[in-house]
Amino acid sequence: MSAASVQIVEVAPRDGLQNEARPLSTAAKLELIRRAVAAGARRVEITGFARPDVVPALADADEVAAATAALPGVQTSALVLNPRGYERARAAGVTAVNMVVLASETFSQRNQRMSVAQALDGAARIRERAGADGVHVAITVGASFGCPFEGEIPLPALRSVLQQVAAIGPDEISLADTIGVGTPADVRARFALLAELAPDVPRRAHFHDTRNTGVANAVAAVEAGVAALDASLGGIGGCPFAPAATGNVATEDLVYCFGRMGVDTGFELAPLLADARWLLDSLGRESGSALSRAGCFPESLLADPVRDSA
Amino acid sequence: MSAASVQIVEVAPRDGLQNEARPLSTAAKLELIRRAVAAGARRVEITGFARPDVVPALADADEVAAATAALPGVQTSALVLNPRGYERARAAGVTAVNMVVLASETFSQRNQRMSVAQALDGAARIRERAGADGVHVAITVGASFGCPFEGEIPLPALRSVLQQVAAIGPDEISLADTIGVGTPADVRARFALLAELAPDVPRRAHFHDTRNTGVANAVAAVEAGVAALDASLGGIGGCPFAPAATGNVATEDLVYCFGRMGVDTGFELAPLLADARWLLDSLGRESGSALSRAGCFPESLLADPVRDSA
Repeated sequence: MSAASVQIVEVAPRDGLQNEARPLSTAAKLELIRRAVAAGARRVEITGFARPDVVPALADADEVAAATAALPGVQTSALVLNPRGYERARAAGVTAVNMVVLASETFSQRNQRMSVAQALDGAARIRERAGADGVHVAITVGASFGCPFEGEIPLPALRSVLQQVAAIGPDEISLADTIGVGTPADVRARFALLAELAPDVPRRAHFHDTRNTGVANAVAAVEAGVAALDASLGGIGGCPFAPAATGNVATEDLVYCFGRMGVDTGFELAPLLADARWLLDSLGRESGSALSRAGCFPESLLADPVRDSA
Repeated sequence: MSAASVQIVEVAPRDGLQNEARPLSTAAKLELIRRAVAAGARRVEITGFARPDVVPALADADEVAAATAALPGVQTSALVLNPRGYERARAAGVTAVNMVVLASETFSQRNQRMSVAQALDGAARIRERAGADGVHVAITVGASFGCPFEGEIPLPALRSVLQQVAAIGPDEISLADTIGVGTPADVRARFALLAELAPDVPRRAHFHDTRNTGVANAVAAVEAGVAALDASLGGIGGCPFAPAATGNVATEDLVYCFGRMGVDTGFELAPLLADARWLLDSLGRESGSALSRAGCFPESLLADPVRDSA
């Protein structure tokens, strides 16, 4: 493990809540963001600007963003799906945006109701405006590890999409395993490809723990030079358009694993576990994380990890 | 990933069933072993010889062992806790045994009702008899990654136990994360220590998925040269003496992950998922594996993994 630290992007307020059966009030969303930051989050995806009839859970995006877009010491970003979403985000004071381009044509049609080419074109136009506005732009390449409709996404197909994404010139590129099928070998191959095509652009990864490879993939990603990982408190979330998707890899599971590996995440585990409990109770659902069920080990590690020495 | 293959030791019949609330009939245990072998298992821990009043789930060990100790092409092993258990195993026709020595004095007293020194002495006596009998001897060092009573097991303490285990001269040494607290960094450090102390002895690992690190640890172990991994169908099991322990890492989760990584396990995933469903239904419990909930991806991979090429 060469990395001394990894950024964790807390995405429970956006990807997490987007797929939960029980909606969270706007006040509870603000409390969720407040708690994440208090536990150590330095990057939070606070909401997404989608059509309220398509994603009702994020209908209060303008209000949530206006209240949390400017938190001291925290990069708060919002998902935007098109230029109109970008304008809403800007009006709310957002200074960092995340866009999604799918690596699968079928998934793009079903999820975003547009072709991959249209998504790339929209991303390029937003990138241009964001450049003028001084807004940080991340592009997430969804279904990079497999598609629920097309099955395998071969590396040459991913290469083609990544070349077009890189040409847009984003500040960060993320590869998302939207349906949770990847393994560490896939992570290494796909991030090596990204590093080849966009060597100077910070890399980010987004894993779902659907097939129990989320933590293994996160470790492989960090060891492959990935700088940031998306995660959701309590392991909540998923994707309403991906039939087999379960939650994001849980923030507390990553914080535990990396903490014991000597990789700094900036988070404190003890408050995080309390926050996960609060969130899961608020949503009336079971935990999607192992740590919130099993607890930490040993308690003294929570504050001050001490590593063994031979 | 340098390894082309990894042995998976199916331990559901022993470690798995040992901690399940609902007992399985002897006939169902034989069916479990038959199914595991049909799905590709080449190593199975068929039972354990313990006092029936202490581990009632394994009270039929003599009968199970007599029926399954000699399966063509399969190494069937049994857990033995003392010379009397060894004699029972031999009487049933067992030709491979697994013994446990704890890396924690407190855990040894509570779990085995003997000191670590006494456990080492018993293992040495069994090793001697097994040598004369031509029986394969594995020694598992339990709580190698942490203890529920003592907390951290520092590497120097583990070194001392491993030196004594190596001096006994077993055919295989396993490090067990009995309570599921380890991370890939721990796996690398501890197996490097074992390789240093017993370079010529095949290494084996035993992980519990309690804190969501089971698959990550398995991948790290194989990449560190570990030849065999314990796993339980359906992720069943645990340890009645380890309060926070949950099930073993699930066989089907490992078969999926390694299969997509191009590491041969010998198992077919499709029958394994059906077997997991049968076992979980028989036990009346929820799945402890991700694959048996989410299903494979894509179905064509079940029989013939095809890897991407850039």
